[in-house]
Amino acid sequence: MQRVPATMQAVCLRAIPDGMPQPSDFSLQSLPVPQPGAGQVLVRLYWLSLDPFLRAQLGGRYVAPCPPLGAVVPGYAVGQVVDDASGRFAAGQWVTGLLGWAQYAVADANALQAVDATLAPPATAVGVLGIPGLTAWAGVRRILAPEAGQTIVISTAAGAVGSVAGQLCKAAGARVVGLTSTDEKCDLVTATYGFDACVNYRAPDFADALRAACPQRIDGYFDNVGGAVLETVLGQLALRARVVLCGLSDQYNRAQRPPGPNLGPVIGARARLEGLVVYDHLADFGTCRQELAGLIAAGQLHYREHIHHGLEQAAAGFIGLLNGENTGKALVAVEHP
Amino acid sequence: MQRVPATMQAVCLRAIPDGMPQPSDFSLQSLPVPQPGAGQVLVRLYWLSLDPFLRAQLGGRYVAPCPPLGAVVPGYAVGQVVDDASGRFAAGQWVTGLLGWAQYAVADANALQAVDATLAPPATAVGVLGIPGLTAWAGVRRILAPEAGQTIVISTAAGAVGSVAGQLCKAAGARVVGLTSTDEKCDLVTATYGFDACVNYRAPDFADALRAACPQRIDGYFDNVGGAVLETVLGQLALRARVVLCGLSDQYNRAQRPPGPNLGPVIGARARLEGLVVYDHLADFGTCRQELAGLIAAGQLHYREHIHHGLEQAAAGFIGLLNGENTGKALVAVEHP
Repeated sequence: MQRVPATMQAVCLRAIPDGMPQPSDFSLQSLPVPQPGAGQVLVRLYWLSLDPFLRAQLGGRYVAPCPPLGAVVPGYAVGQVVDDASGRFAAGQWVTGLLGWAQYAVADANALQAVDATLAPPATAVGVLGIPGLTAWAGVRRILAPEAGQTIVISTAAGAVGSVAGQLCKAAGARVVGLTSTDEKCDLVTATYGFDACVNYRAPDFADALRAACPQRIDGYFDNVGGAVLETVLGQLALRARVVLCGLSDQYNRAQRPPGPNLGPVIGARARLEGLVVYDHLADFGTCRQELAGLIAAGQLHYREHIHHGLEQAAAGFIGLLNGENTGKALVAVEHP
Repeated sequence: MQRVPATMQAVCLRAIPDGMPQPSDFSLQSLPVPQPGAGQVLVRLYWLSLDPFLRAQLGGRYVAPCPPLGAVVPGYAVGQVVDDASGRFAAGQWVTGLLGWAQYAVADANALQAVDATLAPPATAVGVLGIPGLTAWAGVRRILAPEAGQTIVISTAAGAVGSVAGQLCKAAGARVVGLTSTDEKCDLVTATYGFDACVNYRAPDFADALRAACPQRIDGYFDNVGGAVLETVLGQLALRARVVLCGLSDQYNRAQRPPGPNLGPVIGARARLEGLVVYDHLADFGTCRQELAGLIAAGQLHYREHIHHGLEQAAAGFIGLLNGENTGKALVAVEHP
C-alpha cells in the first residue's frame, strides 16, 4: 500500500451561493484523510471534474440534493485505488465516481467505476468518455436521431457535452451549427471540432446570424442553455424538429425560475421537445464509451481539456466555468506532495 | 334545383381585433349569392362552426393567413349542395368545408367533404365527428398514448376537443382529470363526460387542487391553453410524461407573444412535449370518424352543442367562445327564409 498522509486538503462548502458563486462560498481546509470501512475503498484523487450542474445542485434545483454547509464539495473525480477493504480493486487501479473536491476520498466499492487506462488517458473518464460524453451520446442517439443532410444546432458547442454531440451529428452526415459565447470559441468549434458553422449567441444580431447559418431551418437542437437562446432557436425550427432539453445554464445562477420560451412555434413546427437526464442512460455507458473511444482512435472525435492546477484553484475554476471562460472539459489537477 | 335568392346575409371582417374581439370588428352585410364556376359547388349553409383558432388567424398567428378586411369571415360550416357544376355531388348532399360565415358559399368541389348524415346529425361534421374530434383523436392516439391506470389531464375539458379527448382516454382505462374555467363546467365534465375529476383552473388554489386530483402526478397532458396553466401542469408531471401542445387560448387575444412556461421541470420529468396540428392527420379522418361514431352509438362518447341562432349572433357567439362562456361545441344555426 502506498504511503497515505494523516491529513489532506479539501474544498468545503462555506455558504450557499446567492447568484453567481463567489470564492468566499468555498474554503480550502485541512481534514483527516478518511478511513475506508467494510466494503469501502480509499482513492487518491488526481482529476476533479468541474460541471455546471453543481450550480443547480447548490441551489436545490438538481436531481441530487444540495450538500450541507461544511461538507466537501461534491463532484465527479478520477483517482487511483490506495486501499480497498472490499477486495474488488487492485491498488493502483484507476477509478471514477462522485468523490468530491479533495486529495483523498472514501467510497463504497460498488459506487465506483473502474477506468480502463489503456482506452484513453484517465482524465477522459470525467470528460469525453465520462458523463459529458454519455450525455452527448444519449441526446444524439435517443432523441435527435440526425439524418444525413439535416441541420442540427448544438449549444455550448465548445464545451464537454456540445463538442461531442456536434461531432457525433457530423459523423451521421448532418450539417452541424454550433452556438457558443465568444468568437474565439466559434473558431475552435469549426476548426478543431469540424462543425460547419458556429454562431456567437451573445452577439446582438444572434437571431439573424442563426437564420443565415441555417437557411433550411433547424431539424434538431441540443439545448444546454434555455431562456432566450432556446426561444430564438424555437422560432427557426423546421417541421418535425427534435429538441433535447438537457441543461439550463441561463438560469443556474438565478434565485427565481425565470419564464421560459413561448411555445407557439413548437406547435407550428410539430416539434418534439424532450427532457434528457443522463443518469437514465448509465446502462448504455459501456456501448457509448467503446463507440467514442473508437472515434477518438480514428481521429474522428476531438476533445480539449481546460486544466486548473491544485485544489486551491477549484473554486475559481468552477466560477470561470459558469462565466463561460473555459474552453473544453474543465478539470482540476489535484496535486500531491 | 332549389330556389336560390339573389342576395344573402354574410358576416364580414370590418377590423382586425385588438385584444379581445368586439362586435364592431364584424359587420352583417347583404351580398350577392355567389355563382359557382367550373368545378365549383354552391352550398346552402345550415351550421357554422365557431373555433378558437379563428382568433389566432385574425392576429396572423395561424397556419392559414388572416383574411383581408371586408372579406367574409372564414370558418368551417356544414350545408347542403344546391348547385354542383362539378357533377360530383347530388343536390341535397350534406357537405362540409371552409365555407365561411354566410347563408351561401361557393367552393371547389375537391375542397368539400361529403357528410354521411346516416352516421350522425350533420352538425357533428364540424364538432365531435369534425376537426375538433380529429384533433382530440390524433392527440390521444399519436402522442398521449394513455395506458390503463395512468393519470391524464385534459384542458378545456368541457369544450369540443377536450371532452372527446378525455372520453377517449377514459375508454383506454386511464384516470382522467379535466381542467375548465367554471365550477358549472366541472360538473358537466364529471357528470356527463365521465371524467374522474375536474379542476377549475381559474380558482386561486388551482395548483393545490390539481395536486390533490393527481396524487400520482400527471402521465399525460392535452394542452389547449398554454401560459400559466401549462406551467402549473409541467410542475406536476410524472416521469416520462407526454404533453400535447395543441392550442394557446391563453394568448390568442394578446398583441405580443407572452413568455412561456419554464421548462426546467420537463428535464426532471424526462417529459416529451410535442406540437400537434390537426391538418397533418386528415388522412386518418375516416378511421377517426368511424371510431368516434361507433363510440357515440354505443353510448360511450357524449357531446354537447352550444347553438347560437342566426348569422347576426355569430360575432357574439365567437366572442363568448373566447371568453369561455360556451359549453360544448359552439355552432351558429344559419336561418333561411
